[in-house]
Amino acid sequence: MEYYSGQIAKLIEELSRLPGIGTKSAQRLAFHIINMPKEQVEQLSSAMIDARNNIRYCRECYTLTDQDLCPVCKSRSRDHGTIMVVETPRDYAAYEKTGKYDGVYHVLHGAISPMLGIGPNDIKLKELMQRLQGDVSEVIIATNSSLEGETTAMYISKLIKPTGVKVSRIASGVPVGGDLENIDEVTLLRALEGRIEL
Amino acid sequence: MEYYSGQIAKLIEELSRLPGIGTKSAQRLAFHIINMPKEQVEQLSSAMIDARNNIRYCRECYTLTDQDLCPVCKSRSRDHGTIMVVETPRDYAAYEKTGKYDGVYHVLHGAISPMLGIGPNDIKLKELMQRLQGDVSEVIIATNSSLEGETTAMYISKLIKPTGVKVSRIASGVPVGGDLENIDEVTLLRALEGRIEL
Repeated sequence: MEYYSGQIAKLIEELSRLPGIGTKSAQRLAFHIINMPKEQVEQLSSAMIDARNNIRYCRECYTLTDQDLCPVCKSRSRDHGTIMVVETPRDYAAYEKTGKYDGVYHVLHGAISPMLGIGPNDIKLKELMQRLQGDVSEVIIATNSSLEGETTAMYISKLIKPTGVKVSRIASGVPVGGDLENIDEVTLLRALEGRIEL
Repeated sequence: MEYYSGQIAKLIEELSRLPGIGTKSAQRLAFHIINMPKEQVEQLSSAMIDARNNIRYCRECYTLTDQDLCPVCKSRSRDHGTIMVVETPRDYAAYEKTGKYDGVYHVLHGAISPMLGIGPNDIKLKELMQRLQGDVSEVIIATNSSLEGETTAMYISKLIKPTGVKVSRIASGVPVGGDLENIDEVTLLRALEGRIEL
């Protein structure tokens, strides 16, 4: 780092604090930024500041948004009685991209992980239970199919069942287009257990 | 992208214009930035703007610096009669890091590549030839050992030889600590050809 002049070193240092960006990538990015048109650097810079300062949780579903309510929660054409529970705003976006889901979401911002010391109170679970006091007919749990995601799904379903609201879990199995030989055993077994009659 | 609110989408878009950052990484970075302490976002942002606005070429060797002359060119303890020619400021930094080279540098900012349409006039070659009119005893060509780097080395050596200045090329071979079985054939042959008597 000391082999670069002060301002390059500073930029490399700041960039390498970002997740997934090591010293090498930070160097590459820094030199790219130095060569970028001035306006583009300014746009990137203000996009960061604006997003950081104006993004907050959606009042209903806790996804990140720059409004009081996210577009889905605001929409009158969505089924507000069906709530899909996801771990992150990225999962929310992934399901929105399919264009086929017409319910609403609830973003937990994490999953229960005893290993990492993340308990039920560290994710937006109380907030989900509060929403169930409204007119909700089904909760679809779409947490990841990882250990943490499964633990969270189990925990939530146990919590909701006594309320009488229907709880479901998205299916896990072989991804569409997936080559059987490249898929891990757990997924293969899961696909077998979840088989449906044709 | 449209599945995110305006300012998140804007940030993701700006980030994904950076080299080596696809949509997925841009999303991950965007959500990280949104959750970063405000001061850290401001530091990153101004480091980008400062570097972009104040970094320029060193008047002598054309590396990037925020001064008129880079630390090496400014130093009185370096041998200004020995010039190591490198492709990028990162290569300059890599050799500086060894702490064993006491000459100066010349940064070409690229390499000759007929494939990419980069000719001798697109890199800082004229600038190198100008420096040779001063008191220079040796030019060490340390361009990459790629096709482009070798082409450039060849071209430069032909250009310099008539001037009577000594030209050398850094050795290529098996990297120190390298496991022979993991090294490509071309490198292995190069190492064989370049063998030295013990």
